[in-house]
Amino acid sequence: MTYWPASSSTTPRYAGPVSFFRLPSLTDPGEADIALLGLPYDGGTTNRAGTRHGPRAMREMSMFIRPFHHVTRTSPYTTHRVADFGDVPMNPLDIDESLSLITAHYAGLGRTRPLTAGGDHLITLPILRALAKDGPVGLIQFDAHSDTNDSYFGGQRYTHGTWVRRAIEEGLVDPRRTVQIGIRGTRYAPDGNDFAENAGVTTLYIEDVYRLGMVGVIAEIRRIVGLGPAYLTFDVDGIDPAYTPGTGTPEVGGYTVFEAQQMVRGLMGLNLVGADVVEVSPPFDPSGNTALVGATMMFEILCLMARPEGP
Amino acid sequence: MTYWPASSSTTPRYAGPVSFFRLPSLTDPGEADIALLGLPYDGGTTNRAGTRHGPRAMREMSMFIRPFHHVTRTSPYTTHRVADFGDVPMNPLDIDESLSLITAHYAGLGRTRPLTAGGDHLITLPILRALAKDGPVGLIQFDAHSDTNDSYFGGQRYTHGTWVRRAIEEGLVDPRRTVQIGIRGTRYAPDGNDFAENAGVTTLYIEDVYRLGMVGVIAEIRRIVGLGPAYLTFDVDGIDPAYTPGTGTPEVGGYTVFEAQQMVRGLMGLNLVGADVVEVSPPFDPSGNTALVGATMMFEILCLMARPEGP
Amino acid sequence: MTYWPASSSTTPRYAGPVSFFRLPSLTDPGEADIALLGLPYDGGTTNRAGTRHGPRAMREMSMFIRPFHHVTRTSPYTTHRVADFGDVPMNPLDIDESLSLITAHYAGLGRTRPLTAGGDHLITLPILRALAKDGPVGLIQFDAHSDTNDSYFGGQRYTHGTWVRRAIEEGLVDPRRTVQIGIRGTRYAPDGNDFAENAGVTTLYIEDVYRLGMVGVIAEIRRIVGLGPAYLTFDVDGIDPAYTPGTGTPEVGGYTVFEAQQMVRGLMGLNLVGADVVEVSPPFDPSGNTALVGATMMFEILCLMARPEGP
Amino acid sequence: MTYWPASSSTTPRYAGPVSFFRLPSLTDPGEADIALLGLPYDGGTTNRAGTRHGPRAMREMSMFIRPFHHVTRTSPYTTHRVADFGDVPMNPLDIDESLSLITAHYAGLGRTRPLTAGGDHLITLPILRALAKDGPVGLIQFDAHSDTNDSYFGGQRYTHGTWVRRAIEEGLVDPRRTVQIGIRGTRYAPDGNDFAENAGVTTLYIEDVYRLGMVGVIAEIRRIVGLGPAYLTFDVDGIDPAYTPGTGTPEVGGYTVFEAQQMVRGLMGLNLVGADVVEVSPPFDPSGNTALVGATMMFEILCLMARPEGP
Amino acid sequence: MTYWPASSSTTPRYAGPVSFFRLPSLTDPGEADIALLGLPYDGGTTNRAGTRHGPRAMREMSMFIRPFHHVTRTSPYTTHRVADFGDVPMNPLDIDESLSLITAHYAGLGRTRPLTAGGDHLITLPILRALAKDGPVGLIQFDAHSDTNDSYFGGQRYTHGTWVRRAIEEGLVDPRRTVQIGIRGTRYAPDGNDFAENAGVTTLYIEDVYRLGMVGVIAEIRRIVGLGPAYLTFDVDGIDPAYTPGTGTPEVGGYTVFEAQQMVRGLMGLNLVGADVVEVSPPFDPSGNTALVGATMMFEILCLMARPEGP
Amino acid sequence: MTYWPASSSTTPRYAGPVSFFRLPSLTDPGEADIALLGLPYDGGTTNRAGTRHGPRAMREMSMFIRPFHHVTRTSPYTTHRVADFGDVPMNPLDIDESLSLITAHYAGLGRTRPLTAGGDHLITLPILRALAKDGPVGLIQFDAHSDTNDSYFGGQRYTHGTWVRRAIEEGLVDPRRTVQIGIRGTRYAPDGNDFAENAGVTTLYIEDVYRLGMVGVIAEIRRIVGLGPAYLTFDVDGIDPAYTPGTGTPEVGGYTVFEAQQMVRGLMGLNLVGADVVEVSPPFDPSGNTALVGATMMFEILCLMARPEGP
Repeated sequence: MTYWPASSSTTPRYAGPVSFFRLPSLTDPGEADIALLGLPYDGGTTNRAGTRHGPRAMREMSMFIRPFHHVTRTSPYTTHRVADFGDVPMNPLDIDESLSLITAHYAGLGRTRPLTAGGDHLITLPILRALAKDGPVGLIQFDAHSDTNDSYFGGQRYTHGTWVRRAIEEGLVDPRRTVQIGIRGTRYAPDGNDFAENAGVTTLYIEDVYRLGMVGVIAEIRRIVGLGPAYLTFDVDGIDPAYTPGTGTPEVGGYTVFEAQQMVRGLMGLNLVGADVVEVSPPFDPSGNTALVGATMMFEILCLMARPEGP
Repeated sequence: MTYWPASSSTTPRYAGPVSFFRLPSLTDPGEADIALLGLPYDGGTTNRAGTRHGPRAMREMSMFIRPFHHVTRTSPYTTHRVADFGDVPMNPLDIDESLSLITAHYAGLGRTRPLTAGGDHLITLPILRALAKDGPVGLIQFDAHSDTNDSYFGGQRYTHGTWVRRAIEEGLVDPRRTVQIGIRGTRYAPDGNDFAENAGVTTLYIEDVYRLGMVGVIAEIRRIVGLGPAYLTFDVDGIDPAYTPGTGTPEVGGYTVFEAQQMVRGLMGLNLVGADVVEVSPPFDPSGNTALVGATMMFEILCLMARPEGP
Repeated sequence: MTYWPASSSTTPRYAGPVSFFRLPSLTDPGEADIALLGLPYDGGTTNRAGTRHGPRAMREMSMFIRPFHHVTRTSPYTTHRVADFGDVPMNPLDIDESLSLITAHYAGLGRTRPLTAGGDHLITLPILRALAKDGPVGLIQFDAHSDTNDSYFGGQRYTHGTWVRRAIEEGLVDPRRTVQIGIRGTRYAPDGNDFAENAGVTTLYIEDVYRLGMVGVIAEIRRIVGLGPAYLTFDVDGIDPAYTPGTGTPEVGGYTVFEAQQMVRGLMGLNLVGADVVEVSPPFDPSGNTALVGATMMFEILCLMARPEGP
Repeated sequence: MTYWPASSSTTPRYAGPVSFFRLPSLTDPGEADIALLGLPYDGGTTNRAGTRHGPRAMREMSMFIRPFHHVTRTSPYTTHRVADFGDVPMNPLDIDESLSLITAHYAGLGRTRPLTAGGDHLITLPILRALAKDGPVGLIQFDAHSDTNDSYFGGQRYTHGTWVRRAIEEGLVDPRRTVQIGIRGTRYAPDGNDFAENAGVTTLYIEDVYRLGMVGVIAEIRRIVGLGPAYLTFDVDGIDPAYTPGTGTPEVGGYTVFEAQQMVRGLMGLNLVGADVVEVSPPFDPSGNTALVGATMMFEILCLMARPEGP
Repeated sequence: MTYWPASSSTTPRYAGPVSFFRLPSLTDPGEADIALLGLPYDGGTTNRAGTRHGPRAMREMSMFIRPFHHVTRTSPYTTHRVADFGDVPMNPLDIDESLSLITAHYAGLGRTRPLTAGGDHLITLPILRALAKDGPVGLIQFDAHSDTNDSYFGGQRYTHGTWVRRAIEEGLVDPRRTVQIGIRGTRYAPDGNDFAENAGVTTLYIEDVYRLGMVGVIAEIRRIVGLGPAYLTFDVDGIDPAYTPGTGTPEVGGYTVFEAQQMVRGLMGLNLVGADVVEVSPPFDPSGNTALVGATMMFEILCLMARPEGP
Repeated sequence: MTYWPASSSTTPRYAGPVSFFRLPSLTDPGEADIALLGLPYDGGTTNRAGTRHGPRAMREMSMFIRPFHHVTRTSPYTTHRVADFGDVPMNPLDIDESLSLITAHYAGLGRTRPLTAGGDHLITLPILRALAKDGPVGLIQFDAHSDTNDSYFGGQRYTHGTWVRRAIEEGLVDPRRTVQIGIRGTRYAPDGNDFAENAGVTTLYIEDVYRLGMVGVIAEIRRIVGLGPAYLTFDVDGIDPAYTPGTGTPEVGGYTVFEAQQMVRGLMGLNLVGADVVEVSPPFDPSGNTALVGATMMFEILCLMARPEGP
């Protein structure tokens, strides 16, 4: 038995409980194959806050998502038990405790794979600590920023701009199986990307994305990540802020949502141990489009996670 | 055993499930004394729509409401079982069916008294049909408009501007035990209020409200309504639109929220069979203050409903 | 024969032509007793622009105004021919030419009295040049600012902050029959109000307004202005910006809309040769409430103009 | 003699009457070749309402449109009499009566071809009932959704999500001469598009649009529709919501406005019996760009309708 | 020599450098009697963040404030050297370090008295640690909340909801010389205010404020605080959120801005060692009125600080 | 010695002084090679005003720009002294005086090259009068509009829609070395572009831009402008309004920001005597993205100006 969204032909989408994709809310991970979680934490933010309100906004906008994908004509709910597991415990005023609480919560999911709505990008680190406990995983990072700075503000090592470096240092991700897509924007130093490059991370700048084309990007991601376990993290600021203005650190000149959809769909068959969509900041999103994009990308990724057998 | 809101000292208010006052969500009316319901229906609206989004916005803003009232120093949750019973079924495209569905749903509540978040003001009619089945009830109506027009648009008799006339005609409310507080604004005809006056309804225009003062208004309401069963309906457009811009038919020159709070608090001890807060329209509420006012007034009314014994 | 608004019971208020109060649009002043005009000029603005969009927004929000006043139970349309005479010609890039064009247009109205939606407050000057051609008139000015500065920016003498001084200097208004209600806010000099005081203008600071009470203010206005010809100008920034944020130079700490309504209604019977509502700036009015207040005050003033016989 | 927009070099665009493209307002269809109409009806909406405010917003934003097209260097006003015919009568609270009123109104236009600003997409059905009275017409539908569901909410057959099925069932459109451009988004069932496919409708999914390119899409539309009478309906949600967030059911991943312009311009010479632009919902359009896009697409389509002779 | 604002008659208010009241920017405290500072820290926030953007928004809106007060007809700049000393150093990701940095910075001001724009309310604690180093000071707290909770989120003792308890415990403020004005809103426990009451703090609930009237409140504050050194902290959420929606924890039913102005003005002559205006959160302030209120209240308080000699 | 932005790793970007790119503020042109200036003048605007607030918004959003360009891996600050020189004097109420003041100010810059944030597009004219005093310069104009109309509103020759014609007539720019990129939108007359064409200006319509591709456009610009002195003016309305809605005269169907970045970067090595970014209008920019785009394009152009030696 699987779970299905509340029918929007019976109950209008603006009515009824608010959950991801109008799915049931559960608490026992054993009852689901894929867990949808909210992680309303933005304590790792270095500039504009607000992603703490991201999960609620993405749940609200996910009302627009129907069960079947129009390209594959399948639904993740046909083959997988997917449900909303609520928000992850954390402490808004304590980074260290939050990191511990988050890791412990994901460790408790057992074999149920998580798809998380953030929160700022720091949240990927404690999630990976839970998921990569058996060895480093590959990392597919859609993002405008490399997030490999060393520290901020007098030695703060755990922020949304440093988490990738930490994840590599801690052996959570394999840098040679790591690819970043859409990197751009000004940087703090001419050698701003040295850590990533030296570690073996593949950086696809936005210029590379358009040079390769979406088909080329897909091929490159698949080549780098391979079929081993991998984690997909989707920072909405990888997309151009005309589409996703509601984010903490917007960088103009990104890809379109359609292009993002093409790239994500091209990853069907990869072995995803988990995924997240982060950096949706509703206070800076007057039209709500950022949250809608976030919810839609969650569904695209969910379809990937429900097709481990490949395309 | 009663129910208590999720602790905002453990889980931040922006996290966790969204329900009225962060209370548990239930489905069996037998498990509660007072049922909080959303009624996201605006099919009776004659001008700007959007109150269909009211329940969701009021639930969201109700996160700000803690359990204890600062004046009485008591909580409704100490003595009463209060829970969120979700949204009421209706048909967004069929007024007649919606009226039937709504009445049936409230009839099913049994002895559990409802406190409803609308929706447009038409919703009070089908609620009253369920609650007043044993005879007419008194009506306390905070509102800028009398809602006693006969029809709109070629004979439409069921709208948010005609429901009071229908309720009187159907014997659901006793006009001599009916009082409207805050009436103002231009009208369609010099005799625009004739029906109400002829029926015996007491109209407290906004000028009367300020002439009597809040204490005088309270005395007048108590005198008119008495101790028999009564229904309280709170249209947020009774308040000045500086406080509640997010409503379909704003009328400038209303009372303040503080004055509304004083008037509602003065009704402690009345015999309320149910109540509602209506006409919150989020698409016209850029700051969210209208929904916050709506949620706060729901709590004030809830405190009334939990103190039938009087002050 | 008089003109009546389009019925909102037949055509919803959001449908049909947009005109002041849904009245007919005319061009021949001979066909009306009172002309409603838009004057979308903000070339006299010294800080934030945008009142050029005021007339359109006030027309739009005037859809909410029904024909009969709920206190007097009469309608201006019963006794007077009132119509929308469109927007007044002006030159957005030339102050001098605009002043000439505006005066000429109002001179052409003949005996039809104008009620104008601005525009910034400079527009009152060229209107007065047309209306006061037979001698100075009294002036009732609801406003946060005295508008009696001498010049701005290197000698600019025609601005929204200097027009009252010009009108007095030019003999258009009788300073002894001039009263300003609601003056407040910081000023450029300790003697910032010397010109007005020396000229004999009565300044009712906001502190005076609350000291006298609305009844006292009304008495004072009536005493000062008397029964001679007078002009009423209503700057929405006299009201507190919680009600009217959409204005160029907001000053916190003003009166409420209800208080403004009381004061205006108290002037029934004065001999108004014309009136205006100015400084509504839609780009700074996210909820639209400022334009709604402006439209409602226009109707309140229209009711005054239609009752020259007094209360 | 034809009609021309008010000069924006004399009267600024923010001044003067608000009509489509600043054209004259007429009532006698015999005086025009093409009638511009507003249809502020959203009673067929299944989720977020607000398109009832679409015509007013599109008229307002059409102030930006000058008379001559920059590619063709011609103006529709040179050869055709085009005017604003106001808003179409309907009943906001009665779907059946609205359908009748709308059809009757369009039937009364005689040989004057209509170009309509909606309203939700249901309005196309009653328009087609008037225009296709002599036999089915071709249909060119720019849209994210197929709108061929059978019913909503317990058998509601007349909604903005079912009108195409009704139009085919009623013989108003020839499915073999029907093409939908931009279809995408999740769906209710794996066979969600079966009705359209079985009926012979050509569906160009967004993936097809980018595979064919705009030139290919144009060729495909022309091939399918041919030179027989056809109706063009432009749902702004076919465009990506970064451009048109102000719509009831946004679907991310659509075409750009420039691409939409290319596709529409490529249809010069088709035999259009009428057209519409629908689903502009101003309450969800904080920047106003959706209404600007809607108005601009109306002008692009108007240029088509004024060039039946072909490119 | 004192400093004066840039002339807005020469340079428009929207031009030129952005500083508090358009005053010069200085860095040496020895050159000023009163230092205006921004403290963009919101790391003590338990719900909605955003006050980190408060100083910048208040500086921007302070462009509206001219040099002379309209009631006293004096200017603080006549007698005192007042300047903008920029933003206080802190660490957005480390509460403890921020507390230290802030205290150190204020300690470095020497005899120059600070007037600070926050930031969340936690910032008052480290400021007091610097200012009350010679013994406890009196505290005048305009606020909706008592801020005397003990801890949040598992023992976090330094938050914007606990700072008053800490300040009393640390001997920074004398509870018997402490008065809180405007307290209201629901609370976590029936004994929610026990700490304050037991410590000897005077709580003026909003009901007390209206019972006493502004004159009575002033008398009570003066009686309690006396003429010893005192600190004034103005949380904008003490005001009703119709005026100040842009705040993290709005509570409906507060005083008006005019009433706040009256109360502050009534404190002329008290011995203020410093003051602040806190909890302005621009992301929730669509009209900007909250920041305008904040800037205006800063000026009112500045006038107090420049008149230690009393009224 | 050169100047560097304040470190955002020490002081968060939302803290500290607001200046272009967080650079120091200077007043002596001799201390800089490139001067960043604000020119908050919109007196040449023919429709919606508001660009007077552009410089402040672009300074604010420039906080997001770090020192090094991610493609060139260099920083303009390595080789050039760049600083913020504040806002240029002008008179908001007098076009002629403003033109004089502006020209005089730029003449005073000496050999320091200016990069200006507008303001409406008229400001480019008085800047050119200062910079082209030794003979006409080439002009690279990114824009949706040709700005070569002759006059508006009864002979106003100095507006944001006529400045290019004036600049050619005055011999400030060499029309044969002038290229306009992105022209589109409806026009007033079929021969709307005759002046430009006859004068020898090269117009790259948006259709040309997409036909040539960005590489082709770059080649064409370089061919036309050559290596002689040239001025670059970037009107943000050349970009599609999905990216830049906050502008006075939006035209749908423009290029993307990424495409704009490509085109600007392709001009490395040209001999730029100055540049500007104009027509950012914050009151119409709810998400702030327009100002962010404006600030980013300023940085891209700054990188050009710091590399006169070519690519």
